[in-house]
Amino acid sequence: MGKLEFDYTKYRVPTDGAFSLADFSTDDTQGLDEERDEDDAKDLLDDNQKRLDDLQERLFAEGEQSLLLVLQAMDTAGKDSTIRKVMGDVNPQGCQVTSFKAPSKEELAHDFLWRIHDHAPPKGMIGIFNRSHYEDVLIVRVHGWASPEVIEQRYGHIKAFEKLLADHGTRIIKVMLNVSKDYQRERLRRRLQRPDKHWKFNPGDLKERALWDDYMAAYEIALQRCSTDYAPWYVIPAENRWFRDLIISQLLVDTLEAMNPQFPEPDFDPADYPPESIT
Amino acid sequence: MGKLEFDYTKYRVPTDGAFSLADFSTDDTQGLDEERDEDDAKDLLDDNQKRLDDLQERLFAEGEQSLLLVLQAMDTAGKDSTIRKVMGDVNPQGCQVTSFKAPSKEELAHDFLWRIHDHAPPKGMIGIFNRSHYEDVLIVRVHGWASPEVIEQRYGHIKAFEKLLADHGTRIIKVMLNVSKDYQRERLRRRLQRPDKHWKFNPGDLKERALWDDYMAAYEIALQRCSTDYAPWYVIPAENRWFRDLIISQLLVDTLEAMNPQFPEPDFDPADYPPESIT
Repeated sequence: MGKLEFDYTKYRVPTDGAFSLADFSTDDTQGLDEERDEDDAKDLLDDNQKRLDDLQERLFAEGEQSLLLVLQAMDTAGKDSTIRKVMGDVNPQGCQVTSFKAPSKEELAHDFLWRIHDHAPPKGMIGIFNRSHYEDVLIVRVHGWASPEVIEQRYGHIKAFEKLLADHGTRIIKVMLNVSKDYQRERLRRRLQRPDKHWKFNPGDLKERALWDDYMAAYEIALQRCSTDYAPWYVIPAENRWFRDLIISQLLVDTLEAMNPQFPEPDFDPADYPPESIT
Repeated sequence: MGKLEFDYTKYRVPTDGAFSLADFSTDDTQGLDEERDEDDAKDLLDDNQKRLDDLQERLFAEGEQSLLLVLQAMDTAGKDSTIRKVMGDVNPQGCQVTSFKAPSKEELAHDFLWRIHDHAPPKGMIGIFNRSHYEDVLIVRVHGWASPEVIEQRYGHIKAFEKLLADHGTRIIKVMLNVSKDYQRERLRRRLQRPDKHWKFNPGDLKERALWDDYMAAYEIALQRCSTDYAPWYVIPAENRWFRDLIISQLLVDTLEAMNPQFPEPDFDPADYPPESIT
């Protein structure tokens, strides 16, 4: 980790149910300073991007495991920019990003995990979910689009589904980008002040903003119920984007290094094929 | 049920784990006689076929529930002919049959339920699985294509997956067509004696036949572990095909009637649209 000292494990949601979202910071930097540490942070992010690119190639060549990053956050918290910054150097052929929008009529005719399962990363791939099956216990809970009994069942279904993927060799990391309501206000104002950001503004977002406390309650329950050893949740302070990128890139690098993907042995004897034999 | 008295609930696998496949008959007819009861049996099957057609239309119009029939059996036990006979009168638009073959390379790169989930019947539909996810604990177990630990996990994954479908409104019925090894021998001989049946014979089937006892053991464990209130297994005596068809058609009719699908209320007031107003 070079000259910068930080520890992302403190952002991990415990699996014993003891969890309060309010205890997690939205702007922590663990003593690092954006200006003072600017060069080191940039070096480390560059280095992590390169390592991710290398690890992805090994993962793909090995073809035995996959990695799934689930990203959830309130609007303006920076899901898109996180993906762009952290995965920017990775071969897009080995990385499939799925952005889950409001479900279609066909999707609604199936159980809520049906469309999600379709996009589970196969062996060798990195999958990124920009929003996910957690919307079915977040926005759906906040708006009461399903009964409390149905929502209650879903936590169990989610855990069983993630266990299925994990048992198949998919390493799952789930990240909530944590920002405050005040931070969102500034980001929304910025979108309205800058004509080149107007396309990102949707008046409907203000309705969801008005339900902020309900969303925080829904996140708290979901993370409490669904943080497991095989699919842990992390609540990452996301107001300082440079720090957010450092943390998430490091989390991905460390996870992939622990998965330790290996280039497979060739299924021929290279001695039988000296390079000069190729004519 | 007209003049014929029979009770298919005796073929239901208990959910408490007390189950021995050897206790289930392959040729039971509950005292009915193929010749003596021929006309009544034919009338009842005809009637059930018509009722299934009607119930399927209601299920489709309602669009709130679905039915899934899982069919498993050894070769020659009659999966194909069961589907043809029992579902023969149902509108094919409302009934999707999926025959699961050996998984492709792409399918093997995903967890074993991935390709199955894709074919789960959406609301309003009847789905039939000709073979299913159970192959992943049957043929895979018999041949040792996965480790005992992986097989062990799969029973849990199957139950969680079927619960997901059930909670979404899918009624699940699982049927093993039960035949003896002697019966299979006669069917295989018949295929070889009749040139018009040669296309159905595959020398590879003899290898599976040699593993008959291993298959029965694998079936016993799978049915014992995965017969649940929300997705029960039935072991249907299948050597008398006319009886098999009666039993399964009755099971489907009763299940759909218990689901009680209703034509939806029109979302307009028919009084506003007297037929003569259409010009």
